[in-house]
Amino acid sequence: MTDDSLDALTAALRAELPADSVITDPDRLESYRHDMARFCPAGTPAVGVQARATADVQHVLRVASRLRVPVVPQGGRTGLSGGANAVDGCIVLMLDKMNRIIEIDAPNRVAVVQPGVFNATLSAAVAEHGLFYPPDPSSWEISTIGGNLATNAGGLCCVRYGVTSDFVRGLEVALADGEVLRTGRRTAKGVAGYDLTRLFVGSEGTLGVITEATLALRPPGLEPRTVAALFPTVMAAGDAVARVVAGGQVPSLLEFMDQSSLRAANAYRNMGLPEHAAAMLIAQSDGPRAADDIAAIAARFTEAGGFDVVEAEDAAEGDLLLAARRESHFALEALGACLTDDVCVPLSHLADFVHQVEKVALDVDLTIAIVGHAGDGNLHPNVMFDAAKEDQVARAIRAFDEIMRIGLEMGGTVTGEHGVGTLKRDWLARELGPVSLRVHQDLKRLFDPAGILNPGKVLAS
Amino acid sequence: MTDDSLDALTAALRAELPADSVITDPDRLESYRHDMARFCPAGTPAVGVQARATADVQHVLRVASRLRVPVVPQGGRTGLSGGANAVDGCIVLMLDKMNRIIEIDAPNRVAVVQPGVFNATLSAAVAEHGLFYPPDPSSWEISTIGGNLATNAGGLCCVRYGVTSDFVRGLEVALADGEVLRTGRRTAKGVAGYDLTRLFVGSEGTLGVITEATLALRPPGLEPRTVAALFPTVMAAGDAVARVVAGGQVPSLLEFMDQSSLRAANAYRNMGLPEHAAAMLIAQSDGPRAADDIAAIAARFTEAGGFDVVEAEDAAEGDLLLAARRESHFALEALGACLTDDVCVPLSHLADFVHQVEKVALDVDLTIAIVGHAGDGNLHPNVMFDAAKEDQVARAIRAFDEIMRIGLEMGGTVTGEHGVGTLKRDWLARELGPVSLRVHQDLKRLFDPAGILNPGKVLAS
Repeated sequence: MTDDSLDALTAALRAELPADSVITDPDRLESYRHDMARFCPAGTPAVGVQARATADVQHVLRVASRLRVPVVPQGGRTGLSGGANAVDGCIVLMLDKMNRIIEIDAPNRVAVVQPGVFNATLSAAVAEHGLFYPPDPSSWEISTIGGNLATNAGGLCCVRYGVTSDFVRGLEVALADGEVLRTGRRTAKGVAGYDLTRLFVGSEGTLGVITEATLALRPPGLEPRTVAALFPTVMAAGDAVARVVAGGQVPSLLEFMDQSSLRAANAYRNMGLPEHAAAMLIAQSDGPRAADDIAAIAARFTEAGGFDVVEAEDAAEGDLLLAARRESHFALEALGACLTDDVCVPLSHLADFVHQVEKVALDVDLTIAIVGHAGDGNLHPNVMFDAAKEDQVARAIRAFDEIMRIGLEMGGTVTGEHGVGTLKRDWLARELGPVSLRVHQDLKRLFDPAGILNPGKVLAS
Repeated sequence: MTDDSLDALTAALRAELPADSVITDPDRLESYRHDMARFCPAGTPAVGVQARATADVQHVLRVASRLRVPVVPQGGRTGLSGGANAVDGCIVLMLDKMNRIIEIDAPNRVAVVQPGVFNATLSAAVAEHGLFYPPDPSSWEISTIGGNLATNAGGLCCVRYGVTSDFVRGLEVALADGEVLRTGRRTAKGVAGYDLTRLFVGSEGTLGVITEATLALRPPGLEPRTVAALFPTVMAAGDAVARVVAGGQVPSLLEFMDQSSLRAANAYRNMGLPEHAAAMLIAQSDGPRAADDIAAIAARFTEAGGFDVVEAEDAAEGDLLLAARRESHFALEALGACLTDDVCVPLSHLADFVHQVEKVALDVDLTIAIVGHAGDGNLHPNVMFDAAKEDQVARAIRAFDEIMRIGLEMGGTVTGEHGVGTLKRDWLARELGPVSLRVHQDLKRLFDPAGILNPGKVLAS
């Protein structure tokens, strides 16, 4: 971008925005360049805008459309696929100051929020009304609802309660031309027109910018009971998951950690987790029959060869186990570079998938630590490598790709909850096939004819 | 359509379809003209095609695109909005013979089906595997999964389990040009690309023709417990619903019948239902704590002024109460013409909505029998009239419109589960507003540039 175009851009933005909302200081812009993904290109923004209202977003989009400048929306920048990474010469549109909980309507079990609210903030606020917002990505304390919506984030509670999109009733979206679209509704049911809400959820800012969301809440589960077990092999752990599902249990959480991730958790926070087993499963039930559920799940664990099957004595002990699981991304990152995959496979392939990933690890001679939401078949193999060693980097990328190939071959998907961003763009095309890819491109062109909305994310620009 | 064009059309269709799949006999075509809606225009088809495979559907769409002939997909023709009504000179595309359950994959809790399978057939088949397909529109014995998908059908179980779209993992869709698109996936979670699955569910055949669906199943609930209560006023019944929801109970079913609908049920099948109350509520719980839930719900009913609060002695007695509710559309139709509305309002407005509908009934001097899925705020006011009396017809239509206006004013939607068809096309435009309507029209043009897919349904053609 030339100095003249930059001046024209900032002047146009400042015409309807407070001076301090438009950021041009290179040091500050530097900090807005990327999310938490690795190996994703991050450009240099021309300017940053701190939006404080929907009207600010509309103004940015109108200016961007007129001057043909890319707009990259950002929330907490905790994404793992590069979806929030800047592109050269873009406007970075920060939504984290649009962080108002507009309304909690307890009788109708609905919350209306701006996109910049942290997931944890919303959860705490609705808890005060005796309500529960289930989607809980591991990043929940530092990720925003807007980012959760953009990626259709999952989490630990999904196995029982569903993912982010299952809790979205309606959206306010600023379109590329600055018009405001309202999708969906406030009611529990509704079939008036096409499901535009779901089209925007998970679209990673490539079709519009979400400026408000109407979210469904539910009554909380009871205090969960927790059971954990160790397994001699990952196959045995996979078998245990299949048995739990076949047995008709619906745990509120069913998580997997392999030996490498248990070791990483101990190294990170000295948690005293067992390290002598190939894998650990952690299950919770928060239903009214929690004790029975947990007993049944424990029995399935044992049948599958699980040992040291222990029920947490109280909620605090259960929380400790879960903390290890929730923090595993950070624990692994602390050990060195880590490339996190996010494949979801049909449950019947879970054990075999883990087994195949172990073979990949041997093949590339790198550690691959596997954690994940076993009850949904959604696993995160983390390829560990030394970023300073070119050869290891190449092998890590090879392993990462190979893991997705294996997942697809089993009828799985290349991303269960982290999104596509730039990291998995080529793999998305492979998963979709030519007809679906063409439909995706057509939709992108329809909503973003000038190609200004987060270009290059999800689809090649 | 001229004789020459008709000949060209049938010849083109027969080129790749068995002779008996292409129907031109006017008597048979007459029977394919309309669904179960009233006051919806039904044209005369040029030809009918009985599809037996996806390839048949593709061929029909290719021919239709080339010759610019409208295609109207049909399943069980049980719709209530005219969505399956023929338009003049169209190809009626019957999918009821594509009725194969392709696969029931119990370990992964998934079924793959063709669109012509009856909902009840699928439910019975998965029950044999110890599984449960929850969406249960009242028409479930005679409506097809394809029709359920096209309208995103609801039903009685929604209050706990969700609507049709909540159980769709992926679709095979024949596009206007005859290409086959695969959407979604088989896994429990997945965020690879835009949510095309949801875009097609509920689009009433205006964006493509669904030729296969991958559906999620779940373990069945336990045998349900049932409680029913009578109420002196509809306001009291509305209050009871609000209390149940506020109390944190999640019934598996919470249904409302007013006095007129109770009388109609008795007249239809001599069911011995009480007729001296203003309204009845029926609740079920199929959870592991069903007895406690039902006791709690009974207490809420009593607090709100309910009387004759009775628990069904056994499942058979519960089924009888529900049969009355499920058959209410037919019971009301048996009394004369009946125009069924389908408004969904926020739960806190439920009592007031019923009250306002009663005022409308007085105003137009017609009986309006109200039944509905109270736990979701989704009510069906049925305007009763004598179709032979022009004046009554006019008043019925006025009442029907007024009911939607009231629903919208309360933050509701004009259709909770029946769909738009032609019946509510103008009201849809009003509910959506200009920006959303424009986006709908843009999407329609994108997927159906020649305007051959069920034209005039949902959106004006």
